[in-house]
Amino acid sequence: MSSTDPDAGRTVADIGEFAVIERAIAGRRQPDSTLLGPGDDAAVVRAADGRVVVSSDMLVQGRHFRFDWSTPEQVGRKAVAQNGADIVSMGAWPTAFLVSLGCPPETPVALTDALTDGIWAEAQSLGAGVVGGDTVQSEQVVVSITVLGDLGGADAVLRSGARPGDQVAVAGRLGWSAAGLAALLAESEGFPELVVAHQVPMPPYRAGLGAARAGATAMTDVSDGLVADLGHLCTASGVAVDLDSARLGPAPQLVAAAAALDADPLHWVLTGGEDHALAATFPADTALPDGWRRIGAVREGSGVTVDGRSWTGAGGWQSFD
Amino acid sequence: MSSTDPDAGRTVADIGEFAVIERAIAGRRQPDSTLLGPGDDAAVVRAADGRVVVSSDMLVQGRHFRFDWSTPEQVGRKAVAQNGADIVSMGAWPTAFLVSLGCPPETPVALTDALTDGIWAEAQSLGAGVVGGDTVQSEQVVVSITVLGDLGGADAVLRSGARPGDQVAVAGRLGWSAAGLAALLAESEGFPELVVAHQVPMPPYRAGLGAARAGATAMTDVSDGLVADLGHLCTASGVAVDLDSARLGPAPQLVAAAAALDADPLHWVLTGGEDHALAATFPADTALPDGWRRIGAVREGSGVTVDGRSWTGAGGWQSFD
Repeated sequence: MSSTDPDAGRTVADIGEFAVIERAIAGRRQPDSTLLGPGDDAAVVRAADGRVVVSSDMLVQGRHFRFDWSTPEQVGRKAVAQNGADIVSMGAWPTAFLVSLGCPPETPVALTDALTDGIWAEAQSLGAGVVGGDTVQSEQVVVSITVLGDLGGADAVLRSGARPGDQVAVAGRLGWSAAGLAALLAESEGFPELVVAHQVPMPPYRAGLGAARAGATAMTDVSDGLVADLGHLCTASGVAVDLDSARLGPAPQLVAAAAALDADPLHWVLTGGEDHALAATFPADTALPDGWRRIGAVREGSGVTVDGRSWTGAGGWQSFD
Repeated sequence: MSSTDPDAGRTVADIGEFAVIERAIAGRRQPDSTLLGPGDDAAVVRAADGRVVVSSDMLVQGRHFRFDWSTPEQVGRKAVAQNGADIVSMGAWPTAFLVSLGCPPETPVALTDALTDGIWAEAQSLGAGVVGGDTVQSEQVVVSITVLGDLGGADAVLRSGARPGDQVAVAGRLGWSAAGLAALLAESEGFPELVVAHQVPMPPYRAGLGAARAGATAMTDVSDGLVADLGHLCTASGVAVDLDSARLGPAPQLVAAAAALDADPLHWVLTGGEDHALAATFPADTALPDGWRRIGAVREGSGVTVDGRSWTGAGGWQSFD
């Protein structure tokens, strides 16, 4: 929206629900997969494969994001990115997003505009549309996103297909978002690259398709932490995973931040969520596709170990505490 | 869940996010259209038509529902029903729902169990699955629903196809939910049938498919009120609608309640939302399908009139006020 737009200084209560929605969709360009965009009772999206992959997430202000730590545009990008990661971790590609927004009536229109700008920017980077949603009044800002995806004729890569002997690999960053969060919590100004990684994750979108084509036996995105999410994969597959700490070597940026913040960089790597890396298992003799690196192996048994030992510092991220 | 279930007396904070989700999906039966149900990074739903119809709504406690007026099960049923109505108003049929739930940590597990029971009951009445969602902590209860639907090879019936000369028809109840809400607000105990209509709408699901097959030129569901929603249809189609008040005759139950509550029953019929009736336009010579009744005609021009005059008491339901 133009900076001379007189509505940008108003609140959502001033302009009303329909105007908020109108501003979110006006002038946006839908991809060819959007057969009918927003404005009717429902949208229509191409599902040429004859199946649709679908996932939803809800993000709550103060719990999943803070506007003093992230711009509204970053919150929008992150919301789309974490949903997109759920689709690529199935070996599919995102085609469309729906976004429902709850916010207090005094929320500035400039905030909802920037949030939707971020949503659209990340969706368009994937070639996906934003095809619907809702806007309602609520006490705190709540963003609920649904993503649709297409498998392009391939089998979905589930969490349940890992077999003993498979190699375990990851694509994307591990621990960067957690390190950035630690820097924000410590009010440190020294690690902008890590803070940005927390504000806007960069899921390795294309690595998901690559893994599926290379014959990945199981895959998941890392949203709760590497140990926690591999734990879910182990449970679904009825196997154990042993990680090789020598292959998890934290990036130099994490080592530097950990030294300054009195933290353990390996803890960030093993337990930090929100980078939306991908973790997958492949047959032992498979050459890993671009972007993937081996970090361990699948064993008989249950649970996740590091160098053969239990990781006592682990633990996923729970929504209620 | 069994009444001897020891967890039923606990809170969602006691049992945690994953247990809340586990309770929501354990023991449920998915239809054949659910190719992969909850538990992986995303679900997979059949979309045999090659297109998927999709819509989302967000409902907020205190604004869209109150637990002193509705049971949690009724709230769940209503959330699914209003989304299902959006799909049938396109001439499609619901295949799957995703439900994201935000709630305070002190929320009883018995409440989330009952809410999900209602969601499943209404979804199963449609033959649809509940295939995913999310559970997070929030200050007030927020239910965000996404519905997928299938067109079965037919064209979607949009709001934009009405033409001057078409007849205007409705299927389902008009004003019942508004009358029930008025009875609740007046703390009247005299109109249980209307109160139930407010608590759990009964959209005329099958009438949507019937209208599509009969050649409806435009269709919408009545969620904001008949005049408001037909107004949206008029805008989308570039036409006017004139309603015939003699054909809108409020049901005897509405007339009785209006007399007791000092209200105008026609006002409820014209402006009451939430019954999720369907409104459609048909060519003048089309025999209306089962469940539909004629209430007016499409004219050249813009906007909605009643007996040729503006309806001054109208107005849609806005989310911010």
